[in-house]
Amino acid sequence: MNSDQLFEQIKQKRSFLCIGLDTDIQKIPHHLRDTSDPIFAFNKEIIDYTHDLAVAYKPNLAFYESLGAEGWVSLDKTVKYLREKHPEIFIIADAKRGDIGNTSNLYARAFFDHFDFDAVTVAPYMGEDSVKPFMTYLDRWVILLALTSNKGAFDFQFMKDANSDDLLFERVLKTSKEWGTTDNMMYVVGATKAEKLEEIREIIPDHFLLVPGVGAQGGSLQEVAQYGMNDRCGLLVNSSRQIIYASDGEDFAEQARVQAEIVQVEMEELLLEAELL
Amino acid sequence: MNSDQLFEQIKQKRSFLCIGLDTDIQKIPHHLRDTSDPIFAFNKEIIDYTHDLAVAYKPNLAFYESLGAEGWVSLDKTVKYLREKHPEIFIIADAKRGDIGNTSNLYARAFFDHFDFDAVTVAPYMGEDSVKPFMTYLDRWVILLALTSNKGAFDFQFMKDANSDDLLFERVLKTSKEWGTTDNMMYVVGATKAEKLEEIREIIPDHFLLVPGVGAQGGSLQEVAQYGMNDRCGLLVNSSRQIIYASDGEDFAEQARVQAEIVQVEMEELLLEAELL
Repeated sequence: MNSDQLFEQIKQKRSFLCIGLDTDIQKIPHHLRDTSDPIFAFNKEIIDYTHDLAVAYKPNLAFYESLGAEGWVSLDKTVKYLREKHPEIFIIADAKRGDIGNTSNLYARAFFDHFDFDAVTVAPYMGEDSVKPFMTYLDRWVILLALTSNKGAFDFQFMKDANSDDLLFERVLKTSKEWGTTDNMMYVVGATKAEKLEEIREIIPDHFLLVPGVGAQGGSLQEVAQYGMNDRCGLLVNSSRQIIYASDGEDFAEQARVQAEIVQVEMEELLLEAELL
Repeated sequence: MNSDQLFEQIKQKRSFLCIGLDTDIQKIPHHLRDTSDPIFAFNKEIIDYTHDLAVAYKPNLAFYESLGAEGWVSLDKTVKYLREKHPEIFIIADAKRGDIGNTSNLYARAFFDHFDFDAVTVAPYMGEDSVKPFMTYLDRWVILLALTSNKGAFDFQFMKDANSDDLLFERVLKTSKEWGTTDNMMYVVGATKAEKLEEIREIIPDHFLLVPGVGAQGGSLQEVAQYGMNDRCGLLVNSSRQIIYASDGEDFAEQARVQAEIVQVEMEELLLEAELL
């Protein structure tokens, strides 16, 4: 999928919602736990009830890896289910990988060949040769960590470069935007740092941003849109826990839909205000 | 395993070699490819022929993930085999993870509870709360990326902090050494940057370092020892391709042993020179 097609999906669904499939075996409803694959059963129902409200889904790999090989089977089934039933959905592996070139090649093989993800999140610390192998696949994306939503973001991401006065995350943006295009790179920018979005848009006006941290982590969707939206929306805003764990009863998927719809309606209003619909 | 026990192993084996199990299905000998689990079959033979020469093994997760669930089964069998046959071996998951706190918790659960690794490599970009969850397990380790061996290391790791004049990797060392102890933290420092080891030892005189990049990537073991060794050795030097792919014939494990022995003999000399044996 390229950026035009993604924007097309956003317009059709009147939504730029990404639903995070942070599926934790310890948090899913009890009635699912005795099924043969509780993780997939949970994801399938969440997808069935929300796919028309979201343009993207983002399984967080940690949740699957913590179950070992079994978790990878659940993940595989989830990605295949999305591909078959809803081929218009953009699927993100939230993996935060990044290694020397020949190893990143293998991670790319894992996420784009073995699985069929559209995009993978990557950490920038190891630089260009750790990122570029993910960009050799047509219509697949790197989503590079720039400014994250957690407290630890202040440890290094705000370090000021003595030569340019750029902060580290700005340097990451300026350097890495030369590595790819607006059709194969996005950036992670946390909603908890929405006030920085204005400066970030000066550096990368046209790239899509994946924005975590709205909802449970305290970020505001209104502010993210105000400072981060561009003329093709340019935003995928992620919500995980607030949607998928809206209820722990048998109605969990219906309640997830209720929560997703609240977000979608707010997104529709923001898209209308920006005259993108 | 704590740092004293690790040093004890180094003295017993007269070696500080870590063998990287970068096991690529496309590179292992043909005669293994028709077995039911070629990756494990390969690892098992490598371990059988080299375990007395190495103190640590380091499966690189990318190689296993690229095979999906099947790869995780091979990895699980490899770790279990090491634990059962050679409980003295230090086992490192070269995973380069790092995510917000609740997600890093799950990665820790994956590597320390589900698998039985002693250590996991972690990227520092997301700061303290992405690293600390790995340190809540007794006798388990974080190995934090500081200065990597690849070309892309120059993109960000050498950025100079306007406030302190520290380079980013130095800031990572100075900040993160407060998060743990010399019994639960190590650092990755590439052998291709051996000249930096002297400065690094001023910041972290007592921590163990995991040093990749000797051999195939061009680093010198002699220089690494000269600048990086401390009074408990303080080094695990990794070699992967040079050892495990020494031959692609039926004698691959014998040839791996020949290569590992060359390195071990050199290490023994360096330990003797440093009067650590």
